[in-house]
Amino acid sequence: MSAMEIKTYLHKKKDLVDKALESIVPPANTFPPSVFEAMRYSLFAGGKRVRPILAIATAESLGARPKGLLPIAGALELIHTYSLVHDDLPAMDNDDFRRGRPTCHKVYGEAMAILAGDGLLNRAFEILSDQKRLKDVPAKRMMAITREIAVASGVFGMVGGQVVDMESEGKDVDFPTLEYIHTHKTGALIRASVRVGALYAGVNEKKLKALTRYGEFIGLAFQIADDILDIVGKQEDIGKDVGSDLKKGKKTFPSFYGLAESRNRAHEVVDKALLSLKDFDAKADVLRELAKYIIYRVN
Amino acid sequence: MSAMEIKTYLHKKKDLVDKALESIVPPANTFPPSVFEAMRYSLFAGGKRVRPILAIATAESLGARPKGLLPIAGALELIHTYSLVHDDLPAMDNDDFRRGRPTCHKVYGEAMAILAGDGLLNRAFEILSDQKRLKDVPAKRMMAITREIAVASGVFGMVGGQVVDMESEGKDVDFPTLEYIHTHKTGALIRASVRVGALYAGVNEKKLKALTRYGEFIGLAFQIADDILDIVGKQEDIGKDVGSDLKKGKKTFPSFYGLAESRNRAHEVVDKALLSLKDFDAKADVLRELAKYIIYRVN
Repeated sequence: MSAMEIKTYLHKKKDLVDKALESIVPPANTFPPSVFEAMRYSLFAGGKRVRPILAIATAESLGARPKGLLPIAGALELIHTYSLVHDDLPAMDNDDFRRGRPTCHKVYGEAMAILAGDGLLNRAFEILSDQKRLKDVPAKRMMAITREIAVASGVFGMVGGQVVDMESEGKDVDFPTLEYIHTHKTGALIRASVRVGALYAGVNEKKLKALTRYGEFIGLAFQIADDILDIVGKQEDIGKDVGSDLKKGKKTFPSFYGLAESRNRAHEVVDKALLSLKDFDAKADVLRELAKYIIYRVN
Repeated sequence: MSAMEIKTYLHKKKDLVDKALESIVPPANTFPPSVFEAMRYSLFAGGKRVRPILAIATAESLGARPKGLLPIAGALELIHTYSLVHDDLPAMDNDDFRRGRPTCHKVYGEAMAILAGDGLLNRAFEILSDQKRLKDVPAKRMMAITREIAVASGVFGMVGGQVVDMESEGKDVDFPTLEYIHTHKTGALIRASVRVGALYAGVNEKKLKALTRYGEFIGLAFQIADDILDIVGKQEDIGKDVGSDLKKGKKTFPSFYGLAESRNRAHEVVDKALLSLKDFDAKADVLRELAKYIIYRVN
Protein backbone atom coordinates (compact mmCIF):
# COMPACT_ATOMS: atom_id res chain seq x y z
CA MET A 1 0.00 0.00 0.00
CA SER A 2 1.42 3.34 -1.08
CA ALA A 3 1.10 6.77 0.54
CA MET A 4 -1.28 7.61 -2.33
CA GLU A 5 -3.43 4.60 -1.59
CA ILE A 6 -3.67 5.39 2.12
CA LYS A 7 -4.80 8.91 1.24
CA THR A 8 -7.54 7.49 -0.97
CA TYR A 9 -8.50 5.06 1.79
CA LEU A 10 -8.74 7.88 4.35
CA HIS A 11 -10.80 9.97 1.97
CA LYS A 12 -13.26 7.17 1.26
CA LYS A 13 -13.71 6.23 4.90
CA LYS A 14 -14.10 9.86 5.91
CA ASP A 15 -17.04 10.11 3.50
CA LEU A 16 -18.54 6.97 4.99
CA VAL A 17 -18.17 8.32 8.54
CA ASP A 18 -19.57 11.72 7.57
CA LYS A 19 -22.66 10.03 6.14
CA ALA A 20 -23.07 8.01 9.32
CA LEU A 21 -22.75 11.18 11.40
CA GLU A 22 -25.38 12.88 9.24
CA SER A 23 -27.79 10.13 10.20
CA ILE A 24 -27.02 10.02 13.92
CA VAL A 25 -27.22 13.74 14.64
CA PRO A 26 -30.69 15.14 14.01
CA PRO A 27 -31.01 18.00 11.50
CA ALA A 28 -30.49 21.58 12.69
CA ASN A 29 -34.22 22.36 12.49
CA THR A 30 -35.05 19.81 15.19
CA PHE A 31 -36.49 21.47 18.29
CA PRO A 32 -34.79 23.23 20.05
CA PRO A 33 -32.83 24.19 16.90
CA SER A 34 -30.08 26.26 18.57
CA VAL A 35 -28.47 23.29 20.29
CA PHE A 36 -28.60 21.07 17.21
CA GLU A 37 -27.07 23.87 15.17
CA ALA A 38 -24.25 24.26 17.71
CA MET A 39 -23.67 20.50 17.87
CA ARG A 40 -23.53 20.25 14.07
CA TYR A 41 -21.31 23.33 13.78
CA SER A 42 -18.61 21.62 15.82
CA LEU A 43 -19.19 18.13 14.45
CA PHE A 44 -18.94 19.18 10.80
CA ALA A 45 -15.97 21.49 11.16
CA GLY A 46 -13.61 19.55 8.93
CA GLY A 47 -12.42 16.91 11.36
CA LYS A 48 -10.33 14.12 9.86
CA ARG A 49 -12.40 11.40 11.59
CA VAL A 50 -9.22 9.69 12.80
CA ARG A 51 -10.92 7.75 15.61
CA PRO A 52 -13.83 6.34 13.60
CA ILE A 53 -11.45 5.39 10.77
CA LEU A 54 -9.14 3.64 13.25
CA ALA A 55 -12.07 1.60 14.53
CA ILE A 56 -13.10 0.69 10.99
CA ALA A 57 -9.55 -0.19 9.87
CA THR A 58 -9.10 -2.37 12.96
CA ALA A 59 -12.33 -4.26 12.33
CA GLU A 60 -11.28 -4.75 8.70
CA SER A 61 -7.86 -6.00 9.77
CA LEU A 62 -9.72 -8.83 11.51
CA GLY A 63 -11.85 -9.58 8.47
CA ALA A 64 -15.06 -7.89 9.66
CA ARG A 65 -17.23 -5.75 7.41
CA PRO A 66 -17.52 -2.23 8.78
CA LYS A 67 -21.18 -1.50 7.94
CA GLY A 68 -22.66 -2.38 11.34
CA LEU A 69 -19.79 -0.57 13.06
CA LEU A 70 -20.65 2.82 11.57
CA PRO A 71 -22.98 4.05 14.34
CA ILE A 72 -20.34 3.07 16.91
CA ALA A 73 -17.61 4.79 14.89
CA GLY A 74 -19.85 7.86 14.77
CA ALA A 75 -20.28 7.76 18.53
CA LEU A 76 -16.48 7.92 18.90
CA GLU A 77 -16.47 11.13 16.86
CA LEU A 78 -19.34 12.59 18.91
CA ILE A 79 -17.29 12.00 22.05
CA HIS A 80 -14.14 13.44 20.51
CA THR A 81 -16.11 16.54 19.44
CA TYR A 82 -17.74 16.97 22.86
CA SER A 83 -14.28 16.98 24.44
CA LEU A 84 -13.02 19.65 22.02
CA VAL A 85 -16.05 21.88 22.62
CA HIS A 86 -15.67 21.70 26.42
CA ASP A 87 -11.87 21.98 26.38
CA ASP A 88 -12.09 25.16 24.28
CA LEU A 89 -14.38 26.91 26.79
CA PRO A 90 -13.20 30.19 28.36
CA ALA A 91 -13.00 28.57 31.81
CA MET A 92 -10.81 25.80 30.33
CA ASP A 93 -8.24 26.30 27.53
CA ASN A 94 -10.00 29.47 26.33
CA ASP A 95 -9.38 28.86 22.63
CA ASP A 96 -11.01 31.15 20.09
CA PHE A 97 -10.15 29.09 17.03
CA ARG A 98 -10.32 25.43 16.18
CA ARG A 99 -9.56 24.03 12.74
CA GLY A 100 -9.36 27.59 11.46
CA ARG A 101 -12.92 28.48 12.53
CA PRO A 102 -14.21 30.29 15.61
CA THR A 103 -14.86 27.81 18.42
CA CYS A 104 -18.38 26.79 19.40
CA HIS A 105 -18.65 29.21 22.33
CA LYS A 106 -17.40 32.11 20.20
CA VAL A 107 -20.31 31.56 17.82
CA TYR A 108 -23.10 30.33 20.10
CA GLY A 109 -22.07 31.60 23.53
CA GLU A 110 -20.73 29.80 26.54
CA ALA A 111 -23.99 28.33 27.84
CA MET A 112 -24.88 26.85 24.48
CA ALA A 113 -21.37 25.43 24.04
CA ILE A 114 -21.60 23.66 27.41
CA LEU A 115 -25.01 22.29 26.43
CA ALA A 116 -23.90 21.33 22.90
CA GLY A 117 -21.02 19.39 24.46
CA ASP A 118 -23.39 17.70 26.90
CA GLY A 119 -25.73 16.98 24.00
CA LEU A 120 -22.98 15.37 21.94
CA LEU A 121 -21.80 13.24 24.86
CA ASN A 122 -25.29 12.04 25.72
CA ARG A 123 -26.07 11.46 22.04
CA ALA A 124 -23.09 9.09 21.81
CA PHE A 125 -24.63 6.89 24.50
CA GLU A 126 -28.10 7.18 22.97
CA ILE A 127 -26.59 5.70 19.81
CA LEU A 128 -24.52 3.05 21.61
CA SER A 129 -27.65 1.75 23.34
CA ASP A 130 -29.89 1.86 20.27
CA GLN A 131 -30.80 -1.75 19.60
CA LYS A 132 -32.52 -0.90 16.32
CA ARG A 133 -29.45 0.72 14.85
CA LEU A 134 -27.15 -1.95 16.24
CA LYS A 135 -29.33 -4.98 15.66
CA ASP A 136 -26.49 -7.04 14.20
CA VAL A 137 -24.16 -6.59 17.19
CA PRO A 138 -24.80 -8.96 20.12
CA ALA A 139 -25.97 -7.02 23.22
CA LYS A 140 -23.14 -8.31 25.42
CA ARG A 141 -20.60 -7.17 22.88
CA MET A 142 -22.31 -3.76 22.74
CA MET A 143 -22.02 -3.45 26.51
CA ALA A 144 -18.28 -4.18 26.32
CA ILE A 145 -17.90 -1.62 23.53
CA THR A 146 -19.90 1.00 25.45
CA ARG A 147 -17.84 0.40 28.58
CA GLU A 148 -14.64 0.81 26.58
CA ILE A 149 -15.79 4.18 25.26
CA ALA A 150 -17.26 5.44 28.55
CA VAL A 151 -14.07 4.65 30.49
CA ALA A 152 -11.89 6.33 27.86
CA SER A 153 -14.11 9.39 27.93
CA GLY A 154 -14.52 9.75 31.70
CA VAL A 155 -12.46 10.45 34.81
CA PHE A 156 -10.08 7.56 34.11
CA GLY A 157 -9.57 8.82 30.57
CA MET A 158 -10.09 12.15 28.84
CA VAL A 159 -11.72 13.99 31.77
CA GLY A 160 -8.82 12.95 34.03
CA GLY A 161 -6.31 14.08 31.39
CA GLN A 162 -7.95 17.47 31.02
CA VAL A 163 -8.05 17.92 34.82
CA VAL A 164 -4.29 17.34 35.12
CA ASP A 165 -3.63 19.48 32.03
CA MET A 166 -5.60 22.38 33.57
CA GLU A 167 -3.84 21.99 36.89
CA SER A 168 -0.43 21.94 35.21
CA GLU A 169 -0.89 25.28 33.48
CA GLY A 170 1.96 27.64 34.23
CA LYS A 171 3.70 24.98 36.33
CA ASP A 172 7.01 23.30 35.67
CA VAL A 173 5.60 19.80 35.11
CA ASP A 174 7.79 16.72 35.07
CA PHE A 175 7.83 14.15 32.29
CA PRO A 176 5.57 11.57 34.04
CA THR A 177 2.91 14.28 34.38
CA LEU A 178 3.23 15.13 30.69
CA GLU A 179 2.87 11.44 29.92
CA TYR A 180 -0.23 11.17 32.09
CA ILE A 181 -1.82 14.10 30.28
CA HIS A 182 -1.00 12.62 26.86
CA THR A 183 -2.09 9.06 27.55
CA HIS A 184 -5.37 10.28 29.05
CA LYS A 185 -6.32 13.40 27.12
CA THR A 186 -5.51 12.04 23.64
CA GLY A 187 -4.29 8.47 24.07
CA ALA A 188 -7.29 6.98 25.83
CA LEU A 189 -9.83 7.53 23.04
CA ILE A 190 -7.41 6.49 20.30
CA ARG A 191 -6.65 3.28 22.18
CA ALA A 192 -10.38 2.78 22.73
CA SER A 193 -11.13 3.34 19.04
CA VAL A 194 -8.80 0.49 18.09
CA ARG A 195 -10.18 -1.78 20.81
CA VAL A 196 -13.77 -0.98 19.87
CA GLY A 197 -13.12 -1.99 16.26
CA ALA A 198 -11.53 -5.20 17.53
CA LEU A 199 -14.34 -6.02 19.97
CA TYR A 200 -16.89 -5.39 17.22
CA ALA A 201 -15.08 -7.93 15.04
CA GLY A 202 -15.17 -10.52 17.84
CA VAL A 203 -11.40 -10.49 18.41
CA ASN A 204 -9.64 -13.12 20.55
CA GLU A 205 -7.69 -12.23 23.73
CA LYS A 206 -4.26 -12.47 22.15
CA LYS A 207 -5.02 -10.28 19.16
CA LEU A 208 -6.88 -7.79 21.38
CA LYS A 209 -3.74 -7.44 23.47
CA ALA A 210 -1.59 -6.84 20.38
CA LEU A 211 -4.04 -4.31 18.97
CA THR A 212 -4.24 -2.54 22.32
CA ARG A 213 -0.46 -2.06 22.22
CA TYR A 214 -0.77 -0.83 18.65
CA GLY A 215 -3.41 1.67 19.80
CA GLU A 216 -1.25 2.89 22.66
CA PHE A 217 1.79 3.39 20.46
CA ILE A 218 -0.01 5.25 17.72
CA GLY A 219 -1.72 7.43 20.33
CA LEU A 220 1.73 8.37 21.58
CA ALA A 221 3.07 8.89 18.04
CA PHE A 222 0.09 11.12 17.34
CA GLN A 223 0.89 13.28 20.34
CA ILE A 224 4.59 13.60 19.62
CA ALA A 225 3.76 14.52 16.00
CA ASP A 226 1.28 17.14 17.22
CA ASP A 227 3.87 18.64 19.55
CA ILE A 228 6.43 18.80 16.74
CA LEU A 229 3.93 20.34 14.34
CA ASP A 230 3.15 23.04 16.88
CA ILE A 231 6.73 24.18 16.30
CA VAL A 232 7.48 23.39 12.66
CA GLY A 233 4.00 23.04 11.09
CA LYS A 234 2.27 25.47 8.79
CA GLN A 235 -0.74 27.27 10.22
CA GLU A 236 -3.04 26.08 7.43
CA ASP A 237 -2.14 22.46 8.19
CA ILE A 238 -2.77 22.52 11.92
CA GLY A 239 -5.74 24.94 11.95
CA LYS A 240 -4.43 26.92 14.89
CA ASP A 241 -1.60 29.35 15.52
CA VAL A 242 1.88 27.87 15.21
CA GLY A 243 3.66 27.96 18.53
CA SER A 244 0.45 28.09 20.58
CA ASP A 245 1.78 25.52 23.06
CA LEU A 246 4.91 27.58 23.58
CA LYS A 247 2.89 30.76 24.02
CA LYS A 248 0.78 29.10 26.69
CA GLY A 249 3.93 27.82 28.40
CA LYS A 250 2.76 24.24 27.86
CA LYS A 251 5.32 21.50 28.23
CA THR A 252 5.63 19.25 25.17
CA PHE A 253 7.89 16.45 23.94
CA PRO A 254 10.26 18.88 22.22
CA SER A 255 10.52 20.99 25.38
CA PHE A 256 11.88 17.91 27.18
CA TYR A 257 13.87 16.25 24.42
CA GLY A 258 14.43 18.83 21.70
CA LEU A 259 13.17 18.59 18.15
CA ALA A 260 15.62 16.02 16.74
CA GLU A 261 15.25 13.60 19.63
CA SER A 262 11.44 13.99 19.52
CA ARG A 263 11.52 13.01 15.84
CA ASN A 264 13.59 9.94 16.75
CA ARG A 265 11.13 9.00 19.46
CA ALA A 266 8.21 9.34 17.05
CA HIS A 267 9.92 6.92 14.67
CA GLU A 268 10.72 4.48 17.48
CA VAL A 269 7.14 4.51 18.68
CA VAL A 270 5.79 3.88 15.18
CA ASP A 271 8.23 0.97 14.83
CA LYS A 272 6.85 -0.47 18.05
CA ALA A 273 3.30 -0.05 16.75
CA LEU A 274 4.29 -1.98 13.61
CA LEU A 275 5.96 -4.68 15.69
CA SER A 276 2.74 -5.18 17.65
CA LEU A 277 1.11 -6.23 14.38
CA LYS A 278 3.75 -8.82 13.47
CA ASP A 279 1.30 -11.74 13.73
CA PHE A 280 -1.31 -10.01 11.56
CA ASP A 281 -1.68 -10.72 7.85
CA ALA A 282 -2.02 -8.33 4.91
CA LYS A 283 -5.49 -7.28 6.05
CA ALA A 284 -3.69 -5.20 8.70
CA ASP A 285 -1.70 -3.27 6.09
CA VAL A 286 -4.01 -0.28 6.44
CA LEU A 287 -3.22 -0.15 10.17
CA ARG A 288 0.47 -0.31 9.32
CA GLU A 289 0.19 2.51 6.80
CA LEU A 290 -1.87 4.59 9.21
CA ALA A 291 0.88 4.31 11.81
CA LYS A 292 3.48 5.53 9.33
CA TYR A 293 1.15 8.24 8.05
CA ILE A 294 0.88 9.80 11.52
CA ILE A 295 4.53 10.85 11.53
CA TYR A 296 4.75 11.44 7.75
CA ARG A 297 3.96 15.12 8.35
CA VAL A 298 6.80 15.70 10.80
CA ASN A 299 9.70 14.48 8.65
CA MET B 1 -49.33 2.69 54.42
CA SER B 2 -49.22 5.81 56.56
CA ALA B 3 -47.28 9.07 56.07
CA MET B 4 -45.03 7.84 58.89
CA GLU B 5 -44.35 4.58 57.10
CA ILE B 6 -43.52 6.29 53.80
CA LYS B 7 -41.02 8.48 55.64
CA THR B 8 -39.36 5.40 57.10
CA TYR B 9 -39.36 3.77 53.66
CA LEU B 10 -37.72 6.83 52.08
CA HIS B 11 -35.14 6.96 54.83
CA LYS B 12 -34.22 3.29 54.46
CA LYS B 13 -33.97 3.43 50.68
CA LYS B 14 -31.94 6.63 50.81
CA ASP B 15 -29.39 4.81 52.97
CA LEU B 16 -29.31 1.95 50.46
CA VAL B 17 -28.78 4.33 47.54
CA ASP B 18 -26.10 6.29 49.41
CA LYS B 19 -24.20 3.06 50.02
CA ALA B 20 -24.48 2.16 46.34
CA LEU B 21 -23.22 5.62 45.37
CA GLU B 22 -20.28 5.24 47.76
CA SER B 23 -19.25 2.14 45.84
CA ILE B 24 -19.72 3.53 42.32
CA VAL B 25 -17.86 6.80 42.77
CA PRO B 26 -14.17 6.26 43.54
CA PRO B 27 -12.81 7.77 46.78
CA ALA B 28 -11.62 11.38 46.79
CA ASN B 29 -7.96 10.33 46.97
CA THR B 30 -8.14 8.66 43.55
CA PHE B 31 -5.89 10.37 41.01
CA PRO B 32 -6.51 13.14 39.99
CA PRO B 33 -8.07 13.85 43.42
CA SER B 34 -9.50 17.31 42.67
CA VAL B 35 -12.12 16.04 40.25
CA PHE B 36 -13.19 13.16 42.48
CA GLU B 37 -13.49 15.58 45.38
CA ALA B 38 -15.65 17.92 43.30
CA MET B 39 -17.82 15.05 42.05
CA ARG B 40 -18.32 13.74 45.58
CA TYR B 41 -18.98 17.23 46.96
CA SER B 42 -22.00 17.60 44.70
CA LEU B 43 -23.12 13.99 44.88
CA PHE B 44 -23.14 13.85 48.69
CA ALA B 45 -24.75 17.22 49.26
CA GLY B 46 -27.88 15.96 50.97
CA GLY B 47 -29.94 14.98 47.93
CA LYS B 48 -33.14 13.09 48.66
CA ARG B 49 -32.37 10.41 46.02
CA VAL B 50 -35.87 10.75 44.58
CA ARG B 51 -34.99 9.24 41.18
CA PRO B 52 -33.16 6.14 42.46
CA ILE B 53 -35.92 5.52 45.01
CA LEU B 54 -38.58 5.83 42.30
CA ALA B 55 -36.77 3.21 40.23
CA ILE B 56 -36.50 0.89 43.24
CA ALA B 57 -40.14 1.37 44.29
CA THR B 58 -41.29 0.69 40.73
CA ALA B 59 -39.27 -2.52 40.49
CA GLU B 60 -40.69 -3.59 43.86
CA SER B 61 -44.23 -2.81 42.70
CA LEU B 62 -43.69 -5.48 40.06
CA GLY B 63 -42.34 -8.00 42.55
CA ALA B 64 -38.63 -7.62 41.70
CA ARG B 65 -35.92 -7.44 44.34
CA PRO B 66 -34.00 -4.19 44.11
CA LYS B 67 -30.48 -5.45 44.86
CA GLY B 68 -29.29 -5.80 41.26
CA LEU B 69 -30.92 -2.49 40.40
CA LEU B 70 -28.76 -0.45 42.78
CA PRO B 71 -25.93 0.40 40.36
CA ILE B 72 -28.54 1.54 37.83
CA ALA B 73 -30.37 3.56 40.47
CA GLY B 74 -27.03 5.12 41.37
CA ALA B 75 -26.41 6.03 37.73
CA LEU B 76 -29.71 7.94 37.72
CA GLU B 77 -28.46 10.02 40.64
CA LEU B 78 -25.09 10.63 38.93
CA ILE B 79 -26.95 12.01 35.92
CA HIS B 80 -29.25 14.13 38.06
CA THR B 81 -26.20 15.54 39.88
CA TYR B 82 -24.30 16.25 36.65
CA SER B 83 -27.29 18.26 35.41
CA LEU B 84 -27.41 20.31 38.63
CA VAL B 85 -23.66 21.05 38.51
CA HIS B 86 -23.80 22.23 34.89
CA ASP B 87 -27.09 24.13 35.30
CA ASP B 88 -25.65 26.07 38.25
CA LEU B 89 -22.64 27.31 36.24
CA PRO B 90 -22.14 31.08 35.83
CA ALA B 91 -22.79 30.85 32.08
CA MET B 92 -26.06 29.02 32.80
CA ASP B 93 -28.34 29.72 35.80
CA ASN B 94 -25.47 31.26 37.79
CA ASP B 95 -26.56 29.88 41.15
CA ASP B 96 -24.28 30.32 44.16
CA PHE B 97 -26.17 28.00 46.47
CA ARG B 98 -27.71 24.57 46.14
CA ARG B 99 -29.24 22.67 49.05
CA GLY B 100 -27.96 25.37 51.38
CA ARG B 101 -24.30 24.90 50.38
CA PRO B 102 -22.12 26.80 47.91
CA THR B 103 -22.44 25.28 44.42
CA CYS B 104 -19.67 23.17 42.92
CA HIS B 105 -18.12 25.99 40.87
CA LYS B 106 -18.14 28.33 43.86
CA VAL B 107 -15.94 25.86 45.74
CA TYR B 108 -13.82 24.30 42.99
CA GLY B 109 -13.93 26.87 40.21
CA GLU B 110 -15.71 26.87 36.90
CA ALA B 111 -13.35 24.59 34.95
CA MET B 112 -13.46 21.92 37.64
CA ALA B 113 -17.25 22.13 37.86
CA ILE B 114 -17.58 21.58 34.11
CA LEU B 115 -15.20 18.61 34.37
CA ALA B 116 -16.88 17.21 37.50
CA GLY B 117 -20.20 17.33 35.64
CA ASP B 118 -18.64 15.62 32.63
CA GLY B 119 -17.07 13.07 34.99
CA LEU B 120 -20.40 12.30 36.65
CA LEU B 121 -22.18 11.92 33.32
CA ASN B 122 -19.52 9.64 31.87
CA ARG B 123 -19.35 7.67 35.11
CA ALA B 124 -23.07 6.91 34.82
CA PHE B 125 -22.46 5.20 31.49
CA GLU B 126 -19.34 3.44 32.78
CA ILE B 127 -21.58 1.88 35.42
CA LEU B 128 -24.47 1.12 33.05
CA SER B 129 -22.12 -0.83 30.78
CA ASP B 130 -20.28 -2.66 33.58
CA GLN B 131 -21.13 -6.32 33.03
CA LYS B 132 -19.45 -7.38 36.27
CA ARG B 133 -21.58 -5.11 38.40
CA LEU B 134 -24.71 -5.91 36.41
CA LYS B 135 -24.15 -9.61 35.87
CA ASP B 136 -27.71 -10.52 36.83
CA VAL B 137 -29.37 -8.21 34.31
CA PRO B 138 -29.62 -9.57 30.74
CA ALA B 139 -27.49 -7.49 28.32
CA LYS B 140 -30.43 -6.67 26.03
CA ARG B 141 -32.38 -5.37 29.00
CA MET B 142 -29.37 -3.29 30.05
CA MET B 143 -29.21 -1.74 26.59
CA ALA B 144 -32.88 -0.77 26.82
CA ILE B 145 -32.30 0.70 30.29
CA THR B 146 -29.22 2.62 29.12
CA ARG B 147 -31.09 3.98 26.13
CA GLU B 148 -33.93 5.12 28.37
CA ILE B 149 -31.51 7.06 30.59
CA ALA B 150 -29.40 8.48 27.75
CA VAL B 151 -32.45 9.81 25.89
CA ALA B 152 -33.86 11.37 29.07
CA SER B 153 -30.51 13.01 29.78
CA GLY B 154 -29.72 14.29 26.28
CA VAL B 155 -31.02 16.75 23.70
CA PHE B 156 -34.48 15.16 23.66
CA GLY B 157 -34.63 15.33 27.44
CA MET B 158 -32.84 17.38 30.05
CA VAL B 159 -30.36 19.13 27.74
CA GLY B 160 -33.24 20.22 25.48
CA GLY B 161 -35.18 21.46 28.51
CA GLN B 162 -32.24 23.48 29.78
CA VAL B 163 -31.69 24.99 26.32
CA VAL B 164 -35.27 26.25 26.14
CA ASP B 165 -35.13 27.39 29.76
CA MET B 166 -31.99 29.43 29.06
CA GLU B 167 -33.49 30.92 25.92
CA SER B 168 -36.68 31.87 27.75
CA GLU B 169 -34.92 33.93 30.39
CA GLY B 170 -36.37 37.40 30.60
CA LYS B 171 -38.94 36.57 27.93
CA ASP B 172 -42.69 36.42 28.29
CA VAL B 173 -43.00 32.67 27.63
CA ASP B 174 -46.34 31.05 26.89
CA PHE B 175 -47.72 28.05 28.74
CA PRO B 176 -46.71 25.41 26.12
CA THR B 177 -43.11 26.61 26.42
CA LEU B 178 -43.27 26.35 30.21
CA GLU B 179 -44.65 22.83 29.78
CA TYR B 180 -41.84 21.90 27.41
CA ILE B 181 -39.26 23.12 29.92
CA HIS B 182 -40.89 21.18 32.75
CA THR B 183 -41.43 17.90 30.92
CA HIS B 184 -37.85 17.95 29.64
CA LYS B 185 -35.78 19.58 32.37
CA THR B 186 -37.36 17.71 35.29
CA GLY B 187 -39.99 15.38 33.88
CA ALA B 188 -37.83 13.33 31.53
CA LEU B 189 -35.52 11.81 34.15
CA ILE B 190 -38.36 11.17 36.62
CA ARG B 191 -40.31 9.37 33.91
CA ALA B 192 -37.16 7.47 32.95
CA SER B 193 -36.51 6.48 36.57
CA VAL B 194 -39.92 4.82 36.76
CA ARG B 195 -39.48 3.14 33.38
CA VAL B 196 -35.99 1.93 34.25
CA GLY B 197 -37.28 0.26 37.41
CA ALA B 198 -40.02 -1.34 35.33
CA LEU B 199 -37.69 -2.54 32.57
CA TYR B 200 -35.33 -3.99 35.18
CA ALA B 201 -38.24 -5.99 36.59
CA GLY B 202 -39.10 -7.35 33.14
CA VAL B 203 -42.41 -5.47 32.87
CA ASN B 204 -44.98 -6.25 30.16
CA GLU B 205 -46.09 -3.66 27.57
CA LYS B 206 -49.40 -2.85 29.24
CA LYS B 207 -47.96 -2.26 32.69
CA LEU B 208 -45.05 -0.28 31.23
CA LYS B 209 -47.56 2.03 29.59
CA ALA B 210 -49.43 2.52 32.87
CA LEU B 211 -46.22 3.15 34.79
CA THR B 212 -45.02 5.59 32.14
CA ARG B 213 -48.20 7.62 32.66
CA TYR B 214 -47.65 7.42 36.40
CA GLY B 215 -44.08 8.72 35.90
CA GLU B 216 -45.26 11.58 33.71
CA PHE B 217 -47.92 12.67 36.19
CA ILE B 218 -45.69 12.59 39.24
CA GLY B 219 -43.02 14.49 37.30
CA LEU B 220 -45.57 17.19 36.66
CA ALA B 221 -46.79 17.12 40.28
CA PHE B 222 -43.20 17.46 41.40
CA GLN B 223 -42.73 20.56 39.27
CA ILE B 224 -45.95 22.24 40.35
CA ALA B 225 -45.06 21.53 43.99
CA ASP B 226 -41.60 23.02 43.45
CA ASP B 227 -43.06 26.15 41.90
CA ILE B 228 -45.48 26.55 44.80
CA LEU B 229 -42.74 26.00 47.37
CA ASP B 230 -40.66 28.72 45.72
CA ILE B 231 -43.39 31.08 46.90
CA VAL B 232 -44.67 29.63 50.17
CA GLY B 233 -41.82 27.33 51.27
CA LYS B 234 -39.36 27.91 54.08
CA GLN B 235 -35.78 28.53 53.07
CA GLU B 236 -34.46 25.68 55.19
CA ASP B 237 -36.81 23.25 53.43
CA ILE B 238 -35.94 24.17 49.86
CA GLY B 239 -32.23 24.91 50.35
CA LYS B 240 -32.32 28.06 48.24
CA ASP B 241 -33.72 31.54 48.60
CA VAL B 242 -37.51 31.73 48.72
CA GLY B 243 -38.82 33.61 45.70
CA SER B 244 -35.75 32.93 43.58
CA ASP B 245 -37.91 32.11 40.53
CA LEU B 246 -39.77 35.40 40.94
CA LYS B 247 -36.53 37.34 41.33
CA LYS B 248 -35.20 35.83 38.11
CA GLY B 249 -38.46 36.64 36.34
CA LYS B 250 -39.02 32.95 35.67
CA LYS B 251 -42.49 31.87 34.66
CA THR B 252 -43.97 29.18 36.89
CA PHE B 253 -47.29 27.43 37.36
CA PRO B 254 -48.47 30.00 39.94
CA SER B 255 -47.54 32.86 37.60
CA PHE B 256 -49.98 31.43 35.05
CA TYR B 257 -52.69 30.06 37.32
CA GLY B 258 -52.24 31.65 40.74
CA LEU B 259 -51.48 29.79 43.93
CA ALA B 260 -54.91 28.29 44.67
CA GLU B 261 -55.46 26.96 41.15
CA SER B 262 -51.90 25.57 41.08
CA ARG B 263 -52.66 23.65 44.27
CA ASN B 264 -55.81 22.27 42.62
CA ARG B 265 -53.81 21.23 39.58
CA ALA B 266 -51.25 19.46 41.74
CA HIS B 267 -54.02 17.46 43.38
CA GLU B 268 -55.62 16.63 40.04
CA VAL B 269 -52.33 15.43 38.62
CA VAL B 270 -51.65 13.22 41.64
CA ASP B 271 -55.15 11.74 41.28
CA LYS B 272 -54.32 10.91 37.67
CA ALA B 273 -51.06 9.29 38.77
CA LEU B 274 -53.02 7.13 41.22
CA LEU B 275 -55.56 6.24 38.55
CA SER B 276 -52.75 5.00 36.28
CA LEU B 277 -51.99 2.40 38.94
CA LYS B 278 -55.57 1.10 39.20
CA ASP B 279 -54.67 -2.37 37.88
CA PHE B 280 -51.72 -2.74 40.26
CA ASP B 281 -51.97 -4.65 43.53
CA ALA B 282 -50.84 -3.70 47.03
CA LYS B 283 -47.17 -3.98 46.01
CA ALA B 284 -47.67 -0.61 44.29
CA ASP B 285 -48.78 1.09 47.50
CA VAL B 286 -45.38 2.70 47.91
CA LEU B 287 -45.75 4.30 44.48
CA ARG B 288 -49.20 5.51 45.51
CA GLU B 289 -47.87 7.02 48.75
CA LEU B 290 -44.94 8.60 46.95
CA ALA B 291 -47.34 10.37 44.61
CA LYS B 292 -49.30 11.77 47.53
CA TYR B 293 -46.11 12.65 49.40
CA ILE B 294 -44.92 14.91 46.57
CA ILE B 295 -47.71 17.40 47.16
CA TYR B 296 -47.91 16.84 50.92
CA ARG B 297 -45.51 19.77 51.44
CA VAL B 298 -47.59 22.28 49.52
CA ASN B 299 -50.86 21.88 51.38
